[in-house]
Amino acid sequence: MGRIFKERTSVDEALQLFLDSFSSLRSAEEVPLEVSAGRVLAESVISGRDVPHYRRAAMDGYAVRASDTPGASPANPVILQLSDWVEEGTTIWVHTGAFLPEGADAVVMVEDTVTAGNMVEIRAQVYPGRNVGQVGEDIKKGDLIFEAGHFLRPCDAAVLASLGMDRMKVFRKPVVAVIPTGDELISREKSGELPPPGMIIETNGLMATLYVKKWGGIPRCTGIIPDHPESIKEAIETNLDADMILLSGGTSVGKRDHAPGVVESLGKLLVHGIGVSPGKPAALGVIGKTPVVCLPGYPVAGLVALYFFVRSGIRKLGSIPALPEPVLRKRLAAKISSKIGYVNFIRVVFEGERVRPLMGAGAGVLSSVAKADGYVLVPENVEGYEEGQEVDVFLIE
Amino acid sequence: MGRIFKERTSVDEALQLFLDSFSSLRSAEEVPLEVSAGRVLAESVISGRDVPHYRRAAMDGYAVRASDTPGASPANPVILQLSDWVEEGTTIWVHTGAFLPEGADAVVMVEDTVTAGNMVEIRAQVYPGRNVGQVGEDIKKGDLIFEAGHFLRPCDAAVLASLGMDRMKVFRKPVVAVIPTGDELISREKSGELPPPGMIIETNGLMATLYVKKWGGIPRCTGIIPDHPESIKEAIETNLDADMILLSGGTSVGKRDHAPGVVESLGKLLVHGIGVSPGKPAALGVIGKTPVVCLPGYPVAGLVALYFFVRSGIRKLGSIPALPEPVLRKRLAAKISSKIGYVNFIRVVFEGERVRPLMGAGAGVLSSVAKADGYVLVPENVEGYEEGQEVDVFLIE
Repeated sequence: MGRIFKERTSVDEALQLFLDSFSSLRSAEEVPLEVSAGRVLAESVISGRDVPHYRRAAMDGYAVRASDTPGASPANPVILQLSDWVEEGTTIWVHTGAFLPEGADAVVMVEDTVTAGNMVEIRAQVYPGRNVGQVGEDIKKGDLIFEAGHFLRPCDAAVLASLGMDRMKVFRKPVVAVIPTGDELISREKSGELPPPGMIIETNGLMATLYVKKWGGIPRCTGIIPDHPESIKEAIETNLDADMILLSGGTSVGKRDHAPGVVESLGKLLVHGIGVSPGKPAALGVIGKTPVVCLPGYPVAGLVALYFFVRSGIRKLGSIPALPEPVLRKRLAAKISSKIGYVNFIRVVFEGERVRPLMGAGAGVLSSVAKADGYVLVPENVEGYEEGQEVDVFLIE
Repeated sequence: MGRIFKERTSVDEALQLFLDSFSSLRSAEEVPLEVSAGRVLAESVISGRDVPHYRRAAMDGYAVRASDTPGASPANPVILQLSDWVEEGTTIWVHTGAFLPEGADAVVMVEDTVTAGNMVEIRAQVYPGRNVGQVGEDIKKGDLIFEAGHFLRPCDAAVLASLGMDRMKVFRKPVVAVIPTGDELISREKSGELPPPGMIIETNGLMATLYVKKWGGIPRCTGIIPDHPESIKEAIETNLDADMILLSGGTSVGKRDHAPGVVESLGKLLVHGIGVSPGKPAALGVIGKTPVVCLPGYPVAGLVALYFFVRSGIRKLGSIPALPEPVLRKRLAAKISSKIGYVNFIRVVFEGERVRPLMGAGAGVLSSVAKADGYVLVPENVEGYEEGQEVDVFLIE
């Protein structure tokens, strides 16, 4: 006690220091196309095939030799004979997408024909290649289809399937160890009864676990670790095979706040004390090659640290591109007061076309997040926003 | 052949007819909190507990009787004795979040104290309740936490855990049968070798399957069904236990297009021919209580029908709220020409701050979707947009 944060690093600087301290995994695994959506290609895809791999009819109609149709028109039709192959004077019905028979070099669309028995009146002249899809028209053998790093969507999986591919090399998902710490915590398995006074149910580890999964990592949550440097050290060392470690709790400057100190003793503490509110006690470090995030135990502060640092960290580890997220422009239903020198994470609820800030709720009040639809970020150098002002609203996902 | 679409229904009207033709499932299942993110609550949640369930310290400091601190200041401190309980003249150290001992009714923050041996100088007067979190301050027993229909986020799971809950009742996911039809299709299992001319690899079923999963349904993809009314009928009847049926292929008005006719023979064909391009041959129907979507076989047209009808259908079945999606305002790098009377689905690629429309690519060219980052919708009554015009761009997810 009596310790204070010696310094405070801005969010941008902290994030940069953190991301610069470790590398992307870049190691690959092979997955079937059925589970490839949402994964990131580990290698570029070059087509080994032409698509289509045969000349095909682009319309329902009759396959012909274009040279059989000179001057054909409704007033002056050419008569061809229905046959099983195409040669001078004969024709075959083809539907869209069908193989264009040898000998044919064009398709007369059905609307320009009249059929009577096995005779077909051709009422339009066609040139070679008319209504014909050529080999490789869609994709040519040797074409670059996707570059390594492409984020696979369901429609991309269909394209890969059309090239005859069935499995893809994708970057493996980062494994993220989640370590909840705190003498006051009891496990959710024992949550059926009310905990004794002074004890609370562990929920931050669960929240971190579900966000890690949502953001493309593989969470691995440990049991609750007591507030002792040796226990925390041991828990970290046991999990150094993970690609990232999250410690929850014990990040402030009180008597029982050991997490940042333990990180410093085992590796490098990059940042402790960040210009974000709530979330100031967050700490960032790296042990060997493993990035470590110390999440504040106050749940809203923990959520902020997850959003600002863990999400970006998982993206870097897994080479996952940051897709644009929905941003809504809304007017404020009440003023926002903000702490200068901090990025303020202001929870808001939708109220018709406006958003109302939840100003009263402290960092410990997780129910304020449950009530919130989204958040507004107030930059470090801004004191707040007036009622009626238009702001960018991000969704809490 | 020779058949034409008798009518064309607008996208909005088609969607309305479709959504009005079936009900939400509303049946529930119980899931552990660990897998609850992304699910929809089937019942409202009322808290059975107060959070916190004990009076707690809101600051690191000393628990006191407020009546022991009259007039305390740096110049005129009150001396209290460190003890194991709080009574007149004694105090106990408490950290933030700790149980406030019986007898104490306030906390003096550590910054306002000086400790010497077992004596504590109190340098600030406090009133009853100062720096104390009262029982139920965050959540009160009986509070409505979430209404039925709430979409659960990871932070919500943490709130539920803090209430002592471990499993939640959520709406079950709709089962969606995906039935690829077409004599020209061969299964992906046989795709290692180039298919014979005229045959193509089945990819639309895969695409539909992955989108169904992404949008919150449980896909069940059947084998390839030949272009015969009896086979299609049998495949539908076998899958009437599903919550929705998707038929892929055979939706146009050619000789081999049987899907809409079979739907009509078994139930009600609501719409065949929709004012969207590509996607016009899509059909919508209902058989008994089961909604049916006939997806055009051309992959881009199929994708459009998935986006416009299947996504909305899964949401209605599963009571899944439509979250805002990212919309980017971008200038066009080239003009868009559009078909009047149709909502035009124009694929676009990002090009710096602008987007370039992929105008040449037909509905059969799935590789155009692989190239596309997003799409622009041109309304029915608009002929197109000029180069440089600002448009709303949606992402292809």
